[in-house]
Amino acid sequence: MRPDGRQTNELRDMQIIPGWNKHAEGSVLIEVGDTRVLCTATVEDRVPPFMKGQGRGWVTAEYAMLPRATGTRNQREAAKGKLGGRTMEIQRLIGRALRSVVDLAALGERSVTLDCDVLQADGGTRTTSITGAFVAMALAMQKLVDNGQLKKLPITDYLASVSVGIVNGQPVLDLNYAEDSQAKVDMNVVMTGNGAFVEVQGTGEEAPFTRDELNALLALAEEGIGQMIAKQKAVLGSVGDRIEEAATYASRS
Amino acid sequence: MRPDGRQTNELRDMQIIPGWNKHAEGSVLIEVGDTRVLCTATVEDRVPPFMKGQGRGWVTAEYAMLPRATGTRNQREAAKGKLGGRTMEIQRLIGRALRSVVDLAALGERSVTLDCDVLQADGGTRTTSITGAFVAMALAMQKLVDNGQLKKLPITDYLASVSVGIVNGQPVLDLNYAEDSQAKVDMNVVMTGNGAFVEVQGTGEEAPFTRDELNALLALAEEGIGQMIAKQKAVLGSVGDRIEEAATYASRS
Amino acid sequence: MRPDGRQTNELRDMQIIPGWNKHAEGSVLIEVGDTRVLCTATVEDRVPPFMKGQGRGWVTAEYAMLPRATGTRNQREAAKGKLGGRTMEIQRLIGRALRSVVDLAALGERSVTLDCDVLQADGGTRTTSITGAFVAMALAMQKLVDNGQLKKLPITDYLASVSVGIVNGQPVLDLNYAEDSQAKVDMNVVMTGNGAFVEVQGTGEEAPFTRDELNALLALAEEGIGQMIAKQKAVLGSVGDRIEEAATYASRS
Amino acid sequence: MRPDGRQTNELRDMQIIPGWNKHAEGSVLIEVGDTRVLCTATVEDRVPPFMKGQGRGWVTAEYAMLPRATGTRNQREAAKGKLGGRTMEIQRLIGRALRSVVDLAALGERSVTLDCDVLQADGGTRTTSITGAFVAMALAMQKLVDNGQLKKLPITDYLASVSVGIVNGQPVLDLNYAEDSQAKVDMNVVMTGNGAFVEVQGTGEEAPFTRDELNALLALAEEGIGQMIAKQKAVLGSVGDRIEEAATYASRS
Amino acid sequence: MRPDGRQTNELRDMQIIPGWNKHAEGSVLIEVGDTRVLCTATVEDRVPPFMKGQGRGWVTAEYAMLPRATGTRNQREAAKGKLGGRTMEIQRLIGRALRSVVDLAALGERSVTLDCDVLQADGGTRTTSITGAFVAMALAMQKLVDNGQLKKLPITDYLASVSVGIVNGQPVLDLNYAEDSQAKVDMNVVMTGNGAFVEVQGTGEEAPFTRDELNALLALAEEGIGQMIAKQKAVLGSVGDRIEEAATYASRS
Amino acid sequence: MRPDGRQTNELRDMQIIPGWNKHAEGSVLIEVGDTRVLCTATVEDRVPPFMKGQGRGWVTAEYAMLPRATGTRNQREAAKGKLGGRTMEIQRLIGRALRSVVDLAALGERSVTLDCDVLQADGGTRTTSITGAFVAMALAMQKLVDNGQLKKLPITDYLASVSVGIVNGQPVLDLNYAEDSQAKVDMNVVMTGNGAFVEVQGTGEEAPFTRDELNALLALAEEGIGQMIAKQKAVLGSVGDRIEEAATYASRS
Repeated sequence: MRPDGRQTNELRDMQIIPGWNKHAEGSVLIEVGDTRVLCTATVEDRVPPFMKGQGRGWVTAEYAMLPRATGTRNQREAAKGKLGGRTMEIQRLIGRALRSVVDLAALGERSVTLDCDVLQADGGTRTTSITGAFVAMALAMQKLVDNGQLKKLPITDYLASVSVGIVNGQPVLDLNYAEDSQAKVDMNVVMTGNGAFVEVQGTGEEAPFTRDELNALLALAEEGIGQMIAKQKAVLGSVGDRIEEAATYASRS
Repeated sequence: MRPDGRQTNELRDMQIIPGWNKHAEGSVLIEVGDTRVLCTATVEDRVPPFMKGQGRGWVTAEYAMLPRATGTRNQREAAKGKLGGRTMEIQRLIGRALRSVVDLAALGERSVTLDCDVLQADGGTRTTSITGAFVAMALAMQKLVDNGQLKKLPITDYLASVSVGIVNGQPVLDLNYAEDSQAKVDMNVVMTGNGAFVEVQGTGEEAPFTRDELNALLALAEEGIGQMIAKQKAVLGSVGDRIEEAATYASRS
Repeated sequence: MRPDGRQTNELRDMQIIPGWNKHAEGSVLIEVGDTRVLCTATVEDRVPPFMKGQGRGWVTAEYAMLPRATGTRNQREAAKGKLGGRTMEIQRLIGRALRSVVDLAALGERSVTLDCDVLQADGGTRTTSITGAFVAMALAMQKLVDNGQLKKLPITDYLASVSVGIVNGQPVLDLNYAEDSQAKVDMNVVMTGNGAFVEVQGTGEEAPFTRDELNALLALAEEGIGQMIAKQKAVLGSVGDRIEEAATYASRS
Repeated sequence: MRPDGRQTNELRDMQIIPGWNKHAEGSVLIEVGDTRVLCTATVEDRVPPFMKGQGRGWVTAEYAMLPRATGTRNQREAAKGKLGGRTMEIQRLIGRALRSVVDLAALGERSVTLDCDVLQADGGTRTTSITGAFVAMALAMQKLVDNGQLKKLPITDYLASVSVGIVNGQPVLDLNYAEDSQAKVDMNVVMTGNGAFVEVQGTGEEAPFTRDELNALLALAEEGIGQMIAKQKAVLGSVGDRIEEAATYASRS
Repeated sequence: MRPDGRQTNELRDMQIIPGWNKHAEGSVLIEVGDTRVLCTATVEDRVPPFMKGQGRGWVTAEYAMLPRATGTRNQREAAKGKLGGRTMEIQRLIGRALRSVVDLAALGERSVTLDCDVLQADGGTRTTSITGAFVAMALAMQKLVDNGQLKKLPITDYLASVSVGIVNGQPVLDLNYAEDSQAKVDMNVVMTGNGAFVEVQGTGEEAPFTRDELNALLALAEEGIGQMIAKQKAVLGSVGDRIEEAATYASRS
Repeated sequence: MRPDGRQTNELRDMQIIPGWNKHAEGSVLIEVGDTRVLCTATVEDRVPPFMKGQGRGWVTAEYAMLPRATGTRNQREAAKGKLGGRTMEIQRLIGRALRSVVDLAALGERSVTLDCDVLQADGGTRTTSITGAFVAMALAMQKLVDNGQLKKLPITDYLASVSVGIVNGQPVLDLNYAEDSQAKVDMNVVMTGNGAFVEVQGTGEEAPFTRDELNALLALAEEGIGQMIAKQKAVLGSVGDRIEEAATYASRS
């Protein structure tokens, strides 16, 4: 039995509120259990220096936690004067994951920046950020289509992410903070709508894990991500239909 | 006629949602028009080095804007590696203003940190932060009373803040971003429930102002702040009653 | 009776020595009581990026204290690796105040940087910096006229600044450090030669203040600033005459 | 056929020279193909603040590349004034991996810092660092045993790491730089002597990967790491025997 | 003939004004030609961490140039967020030079910090700083004697510094900026009252120099420093007499 | 008798291994006693901003110590976020010394960066860096000649460096760490193949030194540097012959 009464293969409640920020080209407030992240997508007509002149776009992400997103207050990284290793690792992960489902050539020389700000944390902030940022990105790119700046959505498939881990010897899906702090093995998985893996990051610092345990964790992740993508589709409506077509087409080829 | 149809002495709609963050000792989500700020109050049993051993507490504030709180995206200060001058000026103002209504000796060697994070900006983010942070602080201090750590609320009066300015030659109350960008004179006023001034910061960079104009602006601010404090009282309920008593008592003495 | 025997409405001795630095386009060593500030004005034929291509100039300021300007030594901000909030607040104030009396369009795409370095501090360093920097700026701009780079002085009025405050329940003018440390209310006022306000920054962190107190403080400031501007005129000589004409003309229109 | 003529499941030549640095408690120069890393282990009789007073030790790592370790020169992070995201990610990984085979309680309140400096890079610098740092750490800890500071080696198993990836549609083992730059899927694997996983970090930014591909990559990694650990044993000699005993014991329990 | 008409072995005019800063324990404004440096000495009853508990004192220096000390404005190091290499090199030199004539054991666990701020530069700012800082330090240490905190002045000899160089093929003494910029060889020399060398820093980046040239430069420096020390004595008066006695005593032993 | 049995005028063993790094245009691993430095030379077809458009090249150096190059571990400067004063002083010295024997006009608008990374330290790391970097630079510049990018080697003479000092009252050559820590006078000397001085940096912080002592130290340095240059020639072979010709030609003119 899990602390909040969930089954081992049960996700927490998930809510995605689109358009929560009036300025951003795309935005969502995503809540997974008590984890609450504001994801905004900003479109700019320029790319970073290393991408210039290639006719291709770029997708990148930044991640931060408000100081009191957690049980005790954390000092702001702006006040410390530098980004911590954890922050950098997470924002690199989010950016990499999102780029895996974007056709950067089709995007053209534009950049999309996903800002994922954790307003309240209860485990799974990086996976929740990816799941929410995908929707914010899709909304922002759809605006480029609506404005006539792009012919079609440069997204090749859905994308969502969840954490899995071994807690009390049991593989479980979507760990909250209490579970995360006592997990022996901790794994973050990012998958596409077609069921392929984009990232698998498993760590057994507390206790190395076997091939069988790895397989059990991947199975849980697959199941959870499928449900998350269904909710993304519900929020995206007609925008989502076009992603689905692209993904179906891609999976056939 | 103002851009959003308000009278010159009319505030924007204001909403204060208490308890928006589950971890903080006190928190509110405050919305003034389209300006939306999350204010959390963190209580810690220690004071900064310069305050140690005096038996008195400390109240301080930090302020930040999410990158896409504004019409175009701003680079994070954490990524730049330093706080900008505007940020420092604002957080010093918020902390100073709040301390003016706290009895630091009665608070004991504790610190209360107010984090004001602007989730969406449309003018008046610093005054909205003060108005919201006051409520978050009161809620956190009430918790100290409820826990038996303090005998009574160490707050001496209500506190709220509003901006006023001269736009198109006309003194107006509570400027939104569109008005703020074309104001010739810009003033932020912080006042107590007893109607005394805590901060008056008027700037006529575009056009110096006369004594009469100053008086007209102060009158507008007084009117607006009175209405804001009425809303704070409604949110604070019985907590607010004790502040009122303290203020009444103080004003008599 | 004040610690140094002055009347409540009496300024400290003020000395302005023009040309104290041989390299700068304009410079003064200004002494107000024991507060001693070196103000240099540097003219450069370029403007900051955000001003480029508008045909307008820019005026900005930097402020610093030598480590032993004060009673105990302060660590250098260069050694700390960052500017403190107080420094940023002050240099933003100085720049804003000076720009209020400059016709930036008439200045053309040039920038004038005022460096205000406090060599010795005894209260009022920010107001003294403004009063001195105005003269250094006027001298530097006059050089542009003398060189034929400008047709006429792009200054629209005189500008000076003083602090006022409530000390021992008494409104007083031009606080020295001893008075400043025990003031309940502290206010910095910047005014033009025509008697208009450019900045009013009043803070009642220790004790909120009433409308009447505010009025008494403003009256003291008006009186003091008038005397300061008379001294600026004496130092500027014929350069000053042209400012006066511009101001007279402006006040009529 | 791979660029350097290796089979898909063939490691590059690997050399481990122990004692390359005369000052460090443990050190190796490790070469895997043309990748050359100096790993030093420093033992100190103190732990980081967050570990104090728990009677347990700490193992941590730092990683850096010399500016000309690569084909074109990289700016030093010391000159930039901050560590990049990649560096932080790698050093967190190395530390985490090493801690997984250390009995921190048995180590006592001591810290071991592994410095991994890449003198020349040709792919796989993070995995080579882990494989080399393990040996340097074992040598340093053996010195604690030899000095009588520890009763027995606080290491529970061998540890080594290798990269695998999909290059030209083919899963291959131990990628050099040329292969790494064209890999569609890239995975770093860390395993113990007992064949358990400590870290699995797979990324399909260029092309998501299937469960079958994941399995093929893990099989290659298992094979390569087994060979690497055999070489570590040869270098460690009698020190290695004790690790083996500990691991055998651990795997039985 | 030199640009300002001096002989090759002629110093510029030198003025030392003691007590220029009212707060510092010792201070001088020193002018050598148009180079003008404010040197303040701060005494504190503590030593840096690496000196604690040894019963010995410490002398250290900091050096900075005001932005407009030079012909064109230099960006502040505080604004850049770090000290440049030149600044660090100079302040290390000043501290080292001063320590060479201080009996740190006799000073006791106190530190003396010499702040050398260049208000106007015209060549030789580092040598002028040393010559001025010596006097400021002596005044501050005398105050410790006067207060009864020290029995006798912990200074073992006079100390002054000058630059020499080869300009237009000619060895010259005390270069101003114009000469310095065209010198082929540039040397800074620090000597004691007894005529011993404390620092010799000669650089022939533009043209290596011979042993004979080196000797000619050292002879010029010896001559100039002797004259500088005579002026220091005149300023120090009776304080200086005690230094002379200490030095005489030291030179005999 | 010296700690390692050397004569007062005896160098430590010196080894220069060219081509130790496969990526750099020129590289050596240099060992002087137990001091071991990796020097790489990077050639780039651009110069720093302040050199642009002059048709001349630039030579610069960076210096660093690995954390465990020394007996106790030093924190990385990249982790501290800034370069220390000692590092800056040393890298400025190395760059300046190397430029003294390069014909920057003949080099053309190219820059050569010498990275000197101390892998193990036992005294004399800055002088060893200069001696090694000279060879790495010569190899890199020879490559420009071999590629046809330059007509002839833009080097005007050999260059090497050694430390000398007074230890136990005795002038000695090439101090190791044990000697360096107890030296009363410490001097670094850089000389050319023609026997001219490029840098003389003598410091008598512990005890001022006389003209005779200075002369004895310079004589030792001359002798040692002559032997070092002989070893550089042996390593450089035919490249060295061309430097010798240039130097002979230069010394005649």
